[in-house]
Amino acid sequence: MALIVQKYGGTSVGSVERIQNVARRIAKFKAQGDDVVVVVSAMSGETNRLVALADAVSGNNPNPREMDVVLATGEQVTIGLLAMALNSIGVPAKSYTGWQVAVKTDSAHTKARIDNIDDTAIHKDLKEGKVVIVAGFQGVDADNNITTLGRGGSDTSAVALAAALKADECQIYTDVDGVYTTDPRVVPEARRLDKITFEEMLELASLGSKVLQIRSVEFAGKYRVRLRVLSSLEEDGGGGTLITFEEDEQMERVVVSGIAFDKNQARINVRGVPDKPGIAYQILGAIADANIEVDMIIQNVGAEGTTDFSFTVPRVDYKKALEILNQIKEHIGANEVSGDDTVVKVSIVGLGMRSHVGVASTMFRTLAEEGINIQMISTSEIKVSVLIAEKYTELATRVLHSVFGLDKA
Amino acid sequence: MALIVQKYGGTSVGSVERIQNVARRIAKFKAQGDDVVVVVSAMSGETNRLVALADAVSGNNPNPREMDVVLATGEQVTIGLLAMALNSIGVPAKSYTGWQVAVKTDSAHTKARIDNIDDTAIHKDLKEGKVVIVAGFQGVDADNNITTLGRGGSDTSAVALAAALKADECQIYTDVDGVYTTDPRVVPEARRLDKITFEEMLELASLGSKVLQIRSVEFAGKYRVRLRVLSSLEEDGGGGTLITFEEDEQMERVVVSGIAFDKNQARINVRGVPDKPGIAYQILGAIADANIEVDMIIQNVGAEGTTDFSFTVPRVDYKKALEILNQIKEHIGANEVSGDDTVVKVSIVGLGMRSHVGVASTMFRTLAEEGINIQMISTSEIKVSVLIAEKYTELATRVLHSVFGLDKA
Repeated sequence: MALIVQKYGGTSVGSVERIQNVARRIAKFKAQGDDVVVVVSAMSGETNRLVALADAVSGNNPNPREMDVVLATGEQVTIGLLAMALNSIGVPAKSYTGWQVAVKTDSAHTKARIDNIDDTAIHKDLKEGKVVIVAGFQGVDADNNITTLGRGGSDTSAVALAAALKADECQIYTDVDGVYTTDPRVVPEARRLDKITFEEMLELASLGSKVLQIRSVEFAGKYRVRLRVLSSLEEDGGGGTLITFEEDEQMERVVVSGIAFDKNQARINVRGVPDKPGIAYQILGAIADANIEVDMIIQNVGAEGTTDFSFTVPRVDYKKALEILNQIKEHIGANEVSGDDTVVKVSIVGLGMRSHVGVASTMFRTLAEEGINIQMISTSEIKVSVLIAEKYTELATRVLHSVFGLDKA
Repeated sequence: MALIVQKYGGTSVGSVERIQNVARRIAKFKAQGDDVVVVVSAMSGETNRLVALADAVSGNNPNPREMDVVLATGEQVTIGLLAMALNSIGVPAKSYTGWQVAVKTDSAHTKARIDNIDDTAIHKDLKEGKVVIVAGFQGVDADNNITTLGRGGSDTSAVALAAALKADECQIYTDVDGVYTTDPRVVPEARRLDKITFEEMLELASLGSKVLQIRSVEFAGKYRVRLRVLSSLEEDGGGGTLITFEEDEQMERVVVSGIAFDKNQARINVRGVPDKPGIAYQILGAIADANIEVDMIIQNVGAEGTTDFSFTVPRVDYKKALEILNQIKEHIGANEVSGDDTVVKVSIVGLGMRSHVGVASTMFRTLAEEGINIQMISTSEIKVSVLIAEKYTELATRVLHSVFGLDKA
């Protein structure tokens, strides 16, 4: 008998039939003698519907506190419906909103962070044999204001609950059956990984793999939550992928575990800036003040005492970033501000890179042989990322998948 | 400067544009220097959508606690959207769910009753110049379970809040501009009443006038809340109708103030029951046990030591009531169980009946002259109700409206 936290995303609870399927799956675990706590998202499409209403009624400027009041209803509907579905097939179940748990967060509306979770009531219900259904994505601050955790926040809710409850496993059910060596829609030879280490998963999540939301992986790492990604569409979850904290022998033999790509990138270049201290801060500070996240950053020596500065931003912020830099261009003494929003970041990730040399150069050579120009490079201990033209996304991913032996079982 | 509680129903907040209209109306009151607390319903259609989802997912047997979790989201969306709309036109506003207020209720899910309201936080916000938006229809019980007050519960929420806050007036905005002498769709000559007494309004509400929900009128009576019904579609509310506690001279002159009809009626007859003590209890007890509400009741002497028993039930419960009586028919020794669900209850209401004789006989004579047969009669101090065939609804209402002088201004 184990205590399992299961999380079902919007697609998995996207219709009456799918909610009933989820109920039957939960009933099976319950019949095996497991204690089950379930975290659910809003039904697919619901969050977008609510955002559209909020934008329309407020002239695209919704008050953040009220935005959270509206958004939190999406998950509240799902918990009620799933609890009903379970009760109607004879499985006692009780729903909890974020404030009912209570999932206490800070007051950063629309992107709150979980401070702590009170698990008293949940433990009591589990003891009485009930399935506990918790609304993901939401919490409550110290002043009883409703908060939400931002997109993908339901994964974080599930992992945080698993940590608080000291659950044996946190299962994330999604519309894929696990973590793949790369996106199977791009590379048909992509294979599901039975296991992946926490560090690799963290890199993959931050590099654009959409299977798990990065904050949930960080949370799992911090509290050492055993995490498994499974399919909500297949009977047994499709096997799934376990995210482990132990590196075993078999895993050591693999150099590269997965390839991720992220099209949500745009490149900005600031050329011919006087090469003096504080220039990076002046440029990036202005970008940060506008709440734009910067990903890759490169600074290079330019001509005659000047420096060239390049970085990437989310595509949606591209125009705004260009605007800001054109405004401060003269003040910082730059010759040219330019950019490109048809780029993609392709990354190889693998714990094996730590002990293997030449991984990066294999990557660069392979891309060169295909005539793919590398615009920027960024590396960490277990990953190498390159920025290339977006049109090469599929080609680059396929040749890298092949050259690092991921095509073979 | 007054403290006003305003309530807007589902039609009044049924679209983005209508919510923005409501926001502008509130802004006007605020600009006059009034403190405003607003109670809103779910956007029209939303509650039905949620009920359909709940029915579908639970095989038409939704768990009541979870039903309330789902239903309460309807009003939560509206409060967030309205608060956003106000904030975006520069009027500081803050939303409250039922539990955030807190509106404390008993635990009777889907039909809870308000026990008390904590107005501390609301008073603080009003003092800071904010408009306070409260979700109608919902509350929270002593164990932090979400409860709802049943259909029309938003009116009750508004009146209860007005009572708790000692508001100067509670304004119910709806899609009609006040209380009419009868339904204008049936009698084009129907006139809006500028004033009506609380007792008359109570009778009208209980007799099928849908302008105000009966529990809200009871609440207003109990706590002496000054209540006004207004139109949310007209600029100045269309004048509206004030529900007063004072009977003034002008009102005394009118014998009948309004005519109501209620098509949600079905008649049941139990004939030839032995005329002995306890028989009414045996019949009505069985009906009450099935949670069926009984409205009009008549017992008449029948043939040879037997009695005939008739009563009305809501149309939706007609078949179930017949079934129950057929099951106990032999046990109670009845000769015949029959009924009719094509009936209507037409009522005349007026404080003037207290001091005027012959009102009922005028009613009966008028109907007889039109060849309308009266099936049942029920009276109180200020109303006379008759049950007639449904097909005579319009005819009966029109001739009564005319004979009691309601056609004239």
